[in-house]
Amino acid sequence: MTRTSVSHTDLVNASAIAVRSAIRDGSYAGHTAGLAAGKLQCNLAILPEKYALDFLRFCLRNPKPCPIVGVGDSGDPSLPTLGHDIDIRTDVSKYRVFRDGTLSEEVTDITDVWTDDLVTVALGCSFTFENALLRNDIPVRHIETGKNVPMFRSNIELVPAGPFHGQMVVTMRPIPESQVAQVKQISARFPQAHGAPIAVGDPAHIGIADLSQPDWGDAVEIKPGEVPVYWACGVTPQNVLLAAGLPICITHSPGHMLIADVAEDAETTIISKI
Amino acid sequence: MTRTSVSHTDLVNASAIAVRSAIRDGSYAGHTAGLAAGKLQCNLAILPEKYALDFLRFCLRNPKPCPIVGVGDSGDPSLPTLGHDIDIRTDVSKYRVFRDGTLSEEVTDITDVWTDDLVTVALGCSFTFENALLRNDIPVRHIETGKNVPMFRSNIELVPAGPFHGQMVVTMRPIPESQVAQVKQISARFPQAHGAPIAVGDPAHIGIADLSQPDWGDAVEIKPGEVPVYWACGVTPQNVLLAAGLPICITHSPGHMLIADVAEDAETTIISKI
Repeated sequence: MTRTSVSHTDLVNASAIAVRSAIRDGSYAGHTAGLAAGKLQCNLAILPEKYALDFLRFCLRNPKPCPIVGVGDSGDPSLPTLGHDIDIRTDVSKYRVFRDGTLSEEVTDITDVWTDDLVTVALGCSFTFENALLRNDIPVRHIETGKNVPMFRSNIELVPAGPFHGQMVVTMRPIPESQVAQVKQISARFPQAHGAPIAVGDPAHIGIADLSQPDWGDAVEIKPGEVPVYWACGVTPQNVLLAAGLPICITHSPGHMLIADVAEDAETTIISKI
Repeated sequence: MTRTSVSHTDLVNASAIAVRSAIRDGSYAGHTAGLAAGKLQCNLAILPEKYALDFLRFCLRNPKPCPIVGVGDSGDPSLPTLGHDIDIRTDVSKYRVFRDGTLSEEVTDITDVWTDDLVTVALGCSFTFENALLRNDIPVRHIETGKNVPMFRSNIELVPAGPFHGQMVVTMRPIPESQVAQVKQISARFPQAHGAPIAVGDPAHIGIADLSQPDWGDAVEIKPGEVPVYWACGVTPQNVLLAAGLPICITHSPGHMLIADVAEDAETTIISKI
């Protein structure tokens, strides 16, 4: 059997299940931004059951950076509330496996790593509200310029749970001052995707020294008349998981999200018939 | 020390902390509808840690009937994300203690029942969206007529998790047909309080035989021009907990809710400074 490599362009209008299938059979291994338009994309955290109760508590106490959109049974790689026939071991295009808090390997399949005590937690991601901003003609600078969103460590303390604690990571998007109120309204409609901004304006207020030096991603220009607007970021739970030094945990690689069958603007992230 | 009995009227404009304090010291033991206006009121489920991961998974998979608004550490009776100085053993005016799936006792204090492995889960309640309907001049029949909201077992299957499964319990409120769209919009703003209706119209479609015979609460009149509108109900998780036959679980008594310091229309149910 010859595997045909599928391009990003081929999958823009594909269904979520078709994208997952292309990823599963190895014919697509790229990033997922813009794929399966309109479907919810998810950050991924997979960890041993022993830590799962505390991690769910942590996420529930920090819903802005860690909005839970799906959770699997212990040892079960399916996620029936998020999509038909999802196999979390194969349906994400790139994974990071961490052991004792250190990156161990980056792989396209975790079948060999999977064990019967692992619990999958899927978390909302900023693609959802970015798409809503774009639909409302609000500029999103890093998308316009083909960059990665700038991410910063803030001084906003997270509410701890068990071994999980730390500070919130935030993303920044420059927004024309006249559109900030509208941006707040639009993004607030997506509590499953970080919701409304957590801060606007002076980066020093949330402990950011220099907007031109992001901790992850790329710096973007702030034009005259624009103000920096900050959202809680899905890198937060990844950081917190790493700092907790679990014997093993697995995340998606940045930009390589799980694509669900759920519409990104659905009222809940549970598909209605399972 | 003489305990002064405090009336419901005395507490309508009291702060959440003042109401909890009156409940804690035994001077108020009534229902909480209308108290501490504007503050989030919560359904309560307390269960052994052994079952907590599955119960959180169950709630997360059924967010319409079971919207989690707070969760405690194992054995810790405080809920710092919901309010200052909450002691869940004393701050609810009436509790039901169930053993092996059967009502064991109804009490005003669970200090003697509390053990180091219990986990508190607070869930959103319909007061939140009812208040929003009233603020928008939408009639709420059972409130107008001083009755308890009618509740019905539906045939809507819940997504199971571990020992937790069953059908959704729903509430019904008659709404003028011309206002149904507005009612949907308003209640959808409160995903932490059951959100938008789950059905409108013919009760047979969701397995209800007779709207004049609610399974809990009181029947209410449906006037000409009104249609029955159904919401997911917080009795659902209580039923599911009972059916699971846990050795012990504790809930609030109907109408005797936990009052949080969080505003009922806040974006998240996490108080900002803890």
